[in-house]
Amino acid sequence: MVHDGPAPGYRRWALKIEYDGTGLVGWQRQDNGLSVQQLLEEAASKLAGDAPVMSATAGRTDAGVHASAMVVQLDLPEQDRLDARQIRDGISFHLKPHRVAVLEAAAAPQGWHARFSAIWRRYRYTILNRPTRPVLDADHVWHVRRPLDAKLMSEAGQSLLGRHDFSSFRAASCQASSPIRTLDVLDVTRQGLHLHIDVQARSFLHHQVRNLAGSLQMIGSGQWPVSKLRQVLEARDRRQAGPTAPSEGLCLVAVGYESDPFA
Amino acid sequence: MVHDGPAPGYRRWALKIEYDGTGLVGWQRQDNGLSVQQLLEEAASKLAGDAPVMSATAGRTDAGVHASAMVVQLDLPEQDRLDARQIRDGISFHLKPHRVAVLEAAAAPQGWHARFSAIWRRYRYTILNRPTRPVLDADHVWHVRRPLDAKLMSEAGQSLLGRHDFSSFRAASCQASSPIRTLDVLDVTRQGLHLHIDVQARSFLHHQVRNLAGSLQMIGSGQWPVSKLRQVLEARDRRQAGPTAPSEGLCLVAVGYESDPFA
Repeated sequence: MVHDGPAPGYRRWALKIEYDGTGLVGWQRQDNGLSVQQLLEEAASKLAGDAPVMSATAGRTDAGVHASAMVVQLDLPEQDRLDARQIRDGISFHLKPHRVAVLEAAAAPQGWHARFSAIWRRYRYTILNRPTRPVLDADHVWHVRRPLDAKLMSEAGQSLLGRHDFSSFRAASCQASSPIRTLDVLDVTRQGLHLHIDVQARSFLHHQVRNLAGSLQMIGSGQWPVSKLRQVLEARDRRQAGPTAPSEGLCLVAVGYESDPFA
Repeated sequence: MVHDGPAPGYRRWALKIEYDGTGLVGWQRQDNGLSVQQLLEEAASKLAGDAPVMSATAGRTDAGVHASAMVVQLDLPEQDRLDARQIRDGISFHLKPHRVAVLEAAAAPQGWHARFSAIWRRYRYTILNRPTRPVLDADHVWHVRRPLDAKLMSEAGQSLLGRHDFSSFRAASCQASSPIRTLDVLDVTRQGLHLHIDVQARSFLHHQVRNLAGSLQMIGSGQWPVSKLRQVLEARDRRQAGPTAPSEGLCLVAVGYESDPFA
């Protein structure tokens, strides 16, 4: 069960991080803008006396997507002998003024990998459902003017639970070897003018949550009957699904491991 | 009961507005930066063919303070014959790209005044209580690292309910003729890492809510015993109270009228 352990002379840390994806190109380093990975590695490298550091994440979020509790691994030089608190506060300090910070740090267990050891991911997709554009939560919600019925969305969502071929909800750019995924949770709830779509699975296809949100919105607004969602799933055809909901409504909220590295 | 009615040829509208106070100088027009009042009046004037428009608010919030449902009055030329929806959407459109928007608009009842007809104001002060600085809710919370006990804060807060001389919690700049106010609600609740201080009164002194939050934080962190809050109140001396909590944690959440103009 050892996947890509730390290089010789390095020690692996598990970090829980929060980030606001607005204006960033996503987790992964890219040439066209700032990524969470670049910001995190540069901050950690400053803390480690400019030594190179390596990171990997439990979920490679897209541009504009947020995380309240993403889990990443960071391999730091052993010689630094920093403790968990120094790592949390030191990296957070060097991350300023960017909207990325470390919530928790812990020495990773032997053989632990942020991505390969994760057994589930949980995302929340949030819709602001009112006539007026978002203000206090701008950049953190999808603005849908048409009134949505959360109960219909919830009912439709139940038909997607379990193990299925999710080709209809998969981005053309998805690099996963199989379109089969097992959806363990799909809850739709309303809190005032906000609708929350909470989903959990071992892993997701690229754009799967945003594509589900876009199709659920078709149900909630009455443009599609409840039964349509299951038909779209069974069609295994991306063209049958609704629009891809925008990135700003999506937030990774939790990652699960058989043994919690922060416990 | 008629206070400052609309000028001849003008019709009064009640608006419910949301704004993010970050980077603004507050409600009131000032020479040193953008105010909510200036942005709102300029947007409304554009909608009204550049005619002058006049506004007044139920609460003149300070720089950096937010509102999720502030009530304001806006006197627009009668001849424009716009309906409530056109006013809501038209002003919100002209307010772009600023983080101010109109949630509701309604023709004001005869004699109604946003400020003088209001019978209560409700504010929420929010603290993020954790070691790491705010990220997703940056600029919308007060960051307090020291662990806070919401129950102790709630208990202490009860001793301030009712009619009192609130001189100890009043800014030196306060222009109210009397320091006597009646506090109808002071609830402190914890939701995960967030603490909410909810207060309601007919009206508040300048900085009263932020000064209460600063003193409650002294109780919650154990720096003061619960009994100290009442002693501070009775001292009628600003120097006895805790620090003024920062503006970004404060949000006006509701204004009450005997007859709801939006009903």
